[in-house]
Amino acid sequence: MLHDLFPPGVQHALDLAGIFVFALAGALLAVRKNFDVFGIAVLALVTALGGGLFRDLCIGAVPPAAFSELSFFVTPLLAAALVFFLHPEVQRINRAINVCDAAGLGLFCVSGTTKAYEYGLGLTSSAALGVATAVGGGVLRDVLANEVPSLLRDREMYAVPAVVGASMIALFISFEVLNALTTALAIVTTFVLRILAMQFHWRAPLAWNRRSSVAEEP
Amino acid sequence: MLHDLFPPGVQHALDLAGIFVFALAGALLAVRKNFDVFGIAVLALVTALGGGLFRDLCIGAVPPAAFSELSFFVTPLLAAALVFFLHPEVQRINRAINVCDAAGLGLFCVSGTTKAYEYGLGLTSSAALGVATAVGGGVLRDVLANEVPSLLRDREMYAVPAVVGASMIALFISFEVLNALTTALAIVTTFVLRILAMQFHWRAPLAWNRRSSVAEEP
Amino acid sequence: MLHDLFPPGVQHALDLAGIFVFALAGALLAVRKNFDVFGIAVLALVTALGGGLFRDLCIGAVPPAAFSELSFFVTPLLAAALVFFLHPEVQRINRAINVCDAAGLGLFCVSGTTKAYEYGLGLTSSAALGVATAVGGGVLRDVLANEVPSLLRDREMYAVPAVVGASMIALFISFEVLNALTTALAIVTTFVLRILAMQFHWRAPLAWNRRSSVAEEP
Repeated sequence: MLHDLFPPGVQHALDLAGIFVFALAGALLAVRKNFDVFGIAVLALVTALGGGLFRDLCIGAVPPAAFSELSFFVTPLLAAALVFFLHPEVQRINRAINVCDAAGLGLFCVSGTTKAYEYGLGLTSSAALGVATAVGGGVLRDVLANEVPSLLRDREMYAVPAVVGASMIALFISFEVLNALTTALAIVTTFVLRILAMQFHWRAPLAWNRRSSVAEEP
Repeated sequence: MLHDLFPPGVQHALDLAGIFVFALAGALLAVRKNFDVFGIAVLALVTALGGGLFRDLCIGAVPPAAFSELSFFVTPLLAAALVFFLHPEVQRINRAINVCDAAGLGLFCVSGTTKAYEYGLGLTSSAALGVATAVGGGVLRDVLANEVPSLLRDREMYAVPAVVGASMIALFISFEVLNALTTALAIVTTFVLRILAMQFHWRAPLAWNRRSSVAEEP
Repeated sequence: MLHDLFPPGVQHALDLAGIFVFALAGALLAVRKNFDVFGIAVLALVTALGGGLFRDLCIGAVPPAAFSELSFFVTPLLAAALVFFLHPEVQRINRAINVCDAAGLGLFCVSGTTKAYEYGLGLTSSAALGVATAVGGGVLRDVLANEVPSLLRDREMYAVPAVVGASMIALFISFEVLNALTTALAIVTTFVLRILAMQFHWRAPLAWNRRSSVAEEP
């Protein structure tokens, strides 16, 4: 989606890699929730494609890439099949998946921001949609699995690296320095921030409780 | 929505019948959850129209049929009123409703696939949107009722007949043999598969658990 | 959004006021659920902008106002910051917030109906989308917080005033008497009905249970 920034083949491979790891995360949650094979496939699809679908509907890019690009649709099904047959093995490499997921986060927030801007949105809105592209699939996955979205609750700062990456792209655009190098810089920054947040257990703050926070929760 | 395949009056009556039984199922869940009269109406509307609404947004058919066709909007409200006043009677004919629901499933997956193809989507995407049309309303209903969508979890193979029916339509289109007869064949196949799945309690598989599946669920 | 009915500055101020109080309600729920700072911001944004976003997607107004109007996006973030730092104080003025929320309900159902009609929808559909504009954000908020939407369950007649207000606008349009005065009348009627419903604890009916309603709930 980063037209003219990377060779088309590179872009497409990066997109598919992001979709694949996001789909793995969705399929693994489905297995944990004891969903059947169809539930595994749906959660893989929703996690991988939900964020981009939301962005495409908001910018008027219909049909969304999820439906116009066959490989975007097939890749999550492959990830679901892999998890279906091999899930204990896949879970064992959870650490590796988290690293891939961080890379997917960087790629999606950057490509989402760029695509929204190409469709005529303002810089702030483009960055907001970039973040939504990166985290939206995970939110939809948690809603379908009937859990509070981990994004809202677990204080893991999952979104902060995406906000940083999307804001960098918006700044690069406004200063007219968006190119393959600066794009790669935003992706890498997002990726590294996410890895650091996981490594050092950075925690997002709760609301400032003047009185005890326990009193708020009956 | 199956333009030129059936006489318009027949199509419209079939669409309304599908909408009506889907709305009954939504309203009955609302009663079971002790929702008030407004909750019953909303769940009837969402169950009956949610799948088609999602499809129409994805293919760019705005305003969606749910809003441009008054009878599509009024029919779920009638179903909600029926359940509101007569729900023990409606529940007693649960078996009949399941049969109607199977018919609705067949009709919606076929009309959804056809409409998506008419709007220029590829065959695989059209079939996927056909399945989404058929099962999407039920998923939205369960999400609003704060339950894990039965589609993902209950192993009842609700989606498999829809996948078969939508795939048949996609194949008929690619072999250029889509007509009233083959369309009816896809609807009937979906319907019969769904009835058989209910009758013989076919179960979708869970993920292959090399170790005990219990260990996965803390 | 009520083009030509009010001076643009007045309209915009009213829109922002409605967005602000809806965002406060969303942020307060996030604090009650112990969400982190990002969860507070997301719930404020979703509550304030979700209803209008749904309406804009359905009528084909892309990019939605939530993304094309920067002040619509920034206002919920300000409300979230206020709640983040001052939430015990904000909760203490809960009564005042409920009054503002009633005003927001009136404004949103009216502006939603008008905008949908301007985009070519029928009167019934426009009124339905007006109601969806007014209550949709709250439903999305509750879904994300993993609660049954209070709209469907708590019998508080939250939606009834919105239905009345949206229907009044539809009637005014069909009789060609929509102007600043009648629009204000619809807003005030919605507002007063909502205040009365809260004051006198009007309750929406549950389904008519011929047998005991307890028997339905295992």
